[in-house]
Amino acid sequence: MKKYFFTILGILWLPINLYATELELPKNLSSQTKQCIGCHKLYTPGIVYDWLKSRHAKITPSEAIKKSELERLVSAKSVPANLSETVVGCYECHSLNGDKHEDNFTHFGNKINVVVSPPDCATCHPEEVKQYTGSKKYHAIKNLMQNPVYHALASTSTGVINYENGELIQKPSSEKTLHETCLGCHGTEVTVKGFKKIKSLSSGLEITVPDLTNWPNQGVGRKNPDGSYGACTSCHPRHQFSIEVARKPYTCAQCHLEPDVPAYNVYKESKHGNIYESVGEHKWNFESVPWRPGKDFTAPTCASCHNSLLVRDDGKIIAERTHDFGARLWVRLFGLIYTHPQPKSGDTTIIKNADGLPLPVTFTGKLAEEYLISKTEMDKRMNIMKNVCSSCHNTNWIDGHFAKMDNTIKETDEMTKTATLILVDAWNKKVADNKNPFDEPIERKWVQQWLFYGNSIRYASAMSGAPDYTSFKYGWWELTKNLQEMKAYIDKKQKDDKK
Amino acid sequence: MKKYFFTILGILWLPINLYATELELPKNLSSQTKQCIGCHKLYTPGIVYDWLKSRHAKITPSEAIKKSELERLVSAKSVPANLSETVVGCYECHSLNGDKHEDNFTHFGNKINVVVSPPDCATCHPEEVKQYTGSKKYHAIKNLMQNPVYHALASTSTGVINYENGELIQKPSSEKTLHETCLGCHGTEVTVKGFKKIKSLSSGLEITVPDLTNWPNQGVGRKNPDGSYGACTSCHPRHQFSIEVARKPYTCAQCHLEPDVPAYNVYKESKHGNIYESVGEHKWNFESVPWRPGKDFTAPTCASCHNSLLVRDDGKIIAERTHDFGARLWVRLFGLIYTHPQPKSGDTTIIKNADGLPLPVTFTGKLAEEYLISKTEMDKRMNIMKNVCSSCHNTNWIDGHFAKMDNTIKETDEMTKTATLILVDAWNKKVADNKNPFDEPIERKWVQQWLFYGNSIRYASAMSGAPDYTSFKYGWWELTKNLQEMKAYIDKKQKDDKK
Amino acid sequence: MKKYFFTILGILWLPINLYATELELPKNLSSQTKQCIGCHKLYTPGIVYDWLKSRHAKITPSEAIKKSELERLVSAKSVPANLSETVVGCYECHSLNGDKHEDNFTHFGNKINVVVSPPDCATCHPEEVKQYTGSKKYHAIKNLMQNPVYHALASTSTGVINYENGELIQKPSSEKTLHETCLGCHGTEVTVKGFKKIKSLSSGLEITVPDLTNWPNQGVGRKNPDGSYGACTSCHPRHQFSIEVARKPYTCAQCHLEPDVPAYNVYKESKHGNIYESVGEHKWNFESVPWRPGKDFTAPTCASCHNSLLVRDDGKIIAERTHDFGARLWVRLFGLIYTHPQPKSGDTTIIKNADGLPLPVTFTGKLAEEYLISKTEMDKRMNIMKNVCSSCHNTNWIDGHFAKMDNTIKETDEMTKTATLILVDAWNKKVADNKNPFDEPIERKWVQQWLFYGNSIRYASAMSGAPDYTSFKYGWWELTKNLQEMKAYIDKKQKDDKK
Repeated sequence: MKKYFFTILGILWLPINLYATELELPKNLSSQTKQCIGCHKLYTPGIVYDWLKSRHAKITPSEAIKKSELERLVSAKSVPANLSETVVGCYECHSLNGDKHEDNFTHFGNKINVVVSPPDCATCHPEEVKQYTGSKKYHAIKNLMQNPVYHALASTSTGVINYENGELIQKPSSEKTLHETCLGCHGTEVTVKGFKKIKSLSSGLEITVPDLTNWPNQGVGRKNPDGSYGACTSCHPRHQFSIEVARKPYTCAQCHLEPDVPAYNVYKESKHGNIYESVGEHKWNFESVPWRPGKDFTAPTCASCHNSLLVRDDGKIIAERTHDFGARLWVRLFGLIYTHPQPKSGDTTIIKNADGLPLPVTFTGKLAEEYLISKTEMDKRMNIMKNVCSSCHNTNWIDGHFAKMDNTIKETDEMTKTATLILVDAWNKKVADNKNPFDEPIERKWVQQWLFYGNSIRYASAMSGAPDYTSFKYGWWELTKNLQEMKAYIDKKQKDDKK
Repeated sequence: MKKYFFTILGILWLPINLYATELELPKNLSSQTKQCIGCHKLYTPGIVYDWLKSRHAKITPSEAIKKSELERLVSAKSVPANLSETVVGCYECHSLNGDKHEDNFTHFGNKINVVVSPPDCATCHPEEVKQYTGSKKYHAIKNLMQNPVYHALASTSTGVINYENGELIQKPSSEKTLHETCLGCHGTEVTVKGFKKIKSLSSGLEITVPDLTNWPNQGVGRKNPDGSYGACTSCHPRHQFSIEVARKPYTCAQCHLEPDVPAYNVYKESKHGNIYESVGEHKWNFESVPWRPGKDFTAPTCASCHNSLLVRDDGKIIAERTHDFGARLWVRLFGLIYTHPQPKSGDTTIIKNADGLPLPVTFTGKLAEEYLISKTEMDKRMNIMKNVCSSCHNTNWIDGHFAKMDNTIKETDEMTKTATLILVDAWNKKVADNKNPFDEPIERKWVQQWLFYGNSIRYASAMSGAPDYTSFKYGWWELTKNLQEMKAYIDKKQKDDKK
Repeated sequence: MKKYFFTILGILWLPINLYATELELPKNLSSQTKQCIGCHKLYTPGIVYDWLKSRHAKITPSEAIKKSELERLVSAKSVPANLSETVVGCYECHSLNGDKHEDNFTHFGNKINVVVSPPDCATCHPEEVKQYTGSKKYHAIKNLMQNPVYHALASTSTGVINYENGELIQKPSSEKTLHETCLGCHGTEVTVKGFKKIKSLSSGLEITVPDLTNWPNQGVGRKNPDGSYGACTSCHPRHQFSIEVARKPYTCAQCHLEPDVPAYNVYKESKHGNIYESVGEHKWNFESVPWRPGKDFTAPTCASCHNSLLVRDDGKIIAERTHDFGARLWVRLFGLIYTHPQPKSGDTTIIKNADGLPLPVTFTGKLAEEYLISKTEMDKRMNIMKNVCSSCHNTNWIDGHFAKMDNTIKETDEMTKTATLILVDAWNKKVADNKNPFDEPIERKWVQQWLFYGNSIRYASAMSGAPDYTSFKYGWWELTKNLQEMKAYIDKKQKDDKK
């Protein structure tokens, strides 16, 4: 009964509210979305106005689908009839696949979901979701939390520690702290605990809504209440879902930052970043589809090299669009102890190396080859990237660049190996204890060797710039100093222990 | 005599100089301001042109005061008649309350002050000054320098150290170094030592001007030559006094930076920061008063959440404007050893905790409750902030966000407590000396635990983003590593000392 | 034969390609440049479109040379006749002085150079190249690599280290790693090993090109294949060569970054940086020549203070343009152990101090005075800088600023001296070994004292802002903590060694 009351109330409000404001609504709005906006333009104006600026608000799927192959953003061959003639509004997305959504509920008469998931987006964008599903990002929770080594790293880094009788006693990490540390980027598991009545802050109305765990979160591998994984809003923030946002480097910078993954920091300091910031950020065309090097932009952002569909003036495709973020990568530069060929599967928990661990390389550097892409595949991917470079650079330049990068990979791996040998020596000499490889000062130094310094140098090498990140800022300065300190740690401890 | 000569000279120059340039002056300029500009457009063109872009140069107080309640920037009920019909130029501000200004002097025939102070600004903006006067920022010098613990921290961190006979001998911090370190943000005491004759660099003329101590400075709590405190120019830089500048995050970033107060760093990496940088910085309306979420902007900057008057489309106020920067804050997240309810008074030197120290919490975590706001007041303030959030987010989302933050506060405080217990243990075991709690390596680690790492994590939690600042960048990685190192420091020292 | 074939092919393609795109070409294009563009607009569209936005593409030298003295960007009194009537296109720059270029080769019938060098640019811009030639940047490779102390610092920081029998064994730095660390900014030696046949990535054609060493690189002191030094593209990136890029701080930020040279970091946090970012970046006139404080911009960027021609409204020159980046500097604040008067020559390898080392100051602080500028010259340069300040600030303000900076120089040098005395004490007491002053933990701390912390504080002082960089971020906090740790290192080691 109450439910109907609110529905009627909502409908009654509608014309009054529409009248009260000068808000200009798109044509071709579904009646349900009209109803949503009727209230939400007052109660959550931020998202309503944001959406009004979106492509979604300006074009119907039936129009969008008619664009030429290269200009199309809708990858579906066809769009359900009931969705094709209205613009893509609140209801169009939040009502999809309700039967699969545990977070489906009735809100002023409409059955909607709180969380819009990749399978919902796939209604119009199936190719993007398919590519994404193959990526490491899709498996980001599992790849971290079901890998015993990384699970130990996460726990030892984020569990509360007490001091009792001169000893450090660590508790397991809390769900909430994991949520905003590791899983802030990797994604949380959002499930429905039940439903609860709340009083809306903005409208003052009492409404019943799903009670979600680990919410809010937009981690890339988030588990959604429909059982799916991924959050398109990680990179296409609600509710403008702007391609400009996704193409600008600040989006990647939400997670790819120093000291462990300094992709954005390095980019910003590089020649490319300089040109982008000085004359690109507000002058280039970040909306054009396809994206044309030269015409639309004259230095790349992250998306140019890793994701976007790039096309020449004569229509030749320089690089296909991809939402598998490793698709143009041949070597994995960061996050693991040693570099290695990209894994074949986005699910890295299936890997088993010679030590029996789900890591692509053993502690001493042996590759788990059968789980990694072949030389042929590596070359293929490197050529895709080189093609991107060739939009501005000549072949000789490009070859010189990658030869330098190959040497950097080799040398930084060697420096990690040295750190590993020192650590093993420390374990052997009992100046450290190998039970947990992350809970002693010398062990943390070992982690920083590859996770901070090796990574930084390789990023800077890969982007041909930011000499600071190869040198003094998490670079070789730290790489060599760290080894000096690790050795001094052993020397001193040994002396202490002898006495 | 000389004085009159220059006055006449100044007046004679006026028409010539106005002729020499195409500078278009506002109408309704006072004759005195016309005279100022006559010379200064040549000698200090930077500030004259800057002012020309200001609201001050475009509107008279009598016009400004007629705006509707929500649109008004002048909070005075009335403005003195002699100021109301000219635009707000050089002379209008620099001539106010001359009798209270020790820095008042005659400059080419006009009696002016060098430093324009909050009481001067209060001529038109009394509400803003009144709010500011109640804030911690207003008391920023005192809160730092008259607190013995913080005074010791400042001295031990900034005093020059010599090395004599194998010992470190520290001198007191120099006034000039304090001026550009701690007091760079907190503010210096600007007083008049006397008057001196100088030769102007740009005009070549000899003029007599007040000789000021600790000048230049725009610290938020600066003591001014009229005895007042505060510098409006901290956030509204001269002479455009732009609301756009104050609303953009770079203003707060002048002081609120990593490692101790990484507000800007965290914002920049958050979803909000991403949207601002990608599509907000140059597309949103940063001049509109009142500020309308949705219509004017679709993601907040610092000012949106902490200061600005926010209004819905239907005219309902989401949040009142405030220049007391703690007015929407319930818990104090940074700067002190433990978090705690906001202090009742902006003057925190009046606090006395159970240890007799002017700190809101004892070293072991006991609150000085009578000096801190009540649960009721905390809830009231939290609701103001939640209202801001509700411009874009639903109630469930908001509650989830703050529940996470509450847990973070609890856990980071627990991690500080652990560090404190280790330090106390070190003091008890005589591996460190508690005479000065800031002059030994293990003590510095203790400070970093709360001042760098705990702060960073709480900021990142509060802004729901920047997982880097909760994790590897001054986050939990450091929080746990630091405890490992503090413990190792005791273990090693003890062994050393036994032998 | 093949060569001619390709030439003909290139020429035949030309009309087809021009037809295939809507690319609007400048008038007054040389026939050779037309040929270049014919292919390259398809194969490297990034650089062709970039160039199309440049001044070079819009004006012929004969027009450019007619501009008034203050507006002229061409400093040559005359330009060779064969270049004066066409716009400055690909061929105009890449064909210059071919006889001196070892990298000269025939490319589709045209003799061109890969690398355009300062002597080539000097055809139109001789004054700029002349100034640059006198600068420390011009000698950047030599100043680093031929200084035995800095050479040792570079090697010890970047050479691969192995761990053998409990000892660290360091190999010499590889050329490729030096290339992307130290020499990334300082410049590499680009020479021609020979010629090689490559298959172009973008066109698929086989072409023969020079085989260059240490390429790509745009370090400021790069050695070019014509034997010259310097890379104008360090700051004027190809192929827009935009004055806007050079005037924006991101260009300097390619190299001048924390922790060793935090010029950009400090600027960004300063009041000047705040104003630039908030209302300058996209509103000011970054193209105007001359540059007029007030009219064109109201807060400086790096270029305003250090390089640009600044002119008042009445045509009076505030500061002359310079491409010798030290020309307005009197004291050298960074990079060396102690501050000191700027060296007389940009070639600092000629210096010999009392210890016989090519350093302007001995380890204990004695100046190598005969190689450094005089007090008179220092005052002259300081006055140039003060003139720049006086565009916005009054004389009293400016004097206060520099008095503060003088104190900072004195105190930070004193803190370096203390660190040096501790290190020497460590050497004397044999807790460290002075054979290589960079390969032990305490030695690295000593380097960080001056190279990171002292530098940061002085930069922040010089730019009157960024109190974070004087305080907690590489500031006094670290400066004092470092001394505590250095002393603790000696104390502990001594105890260890006694036992």
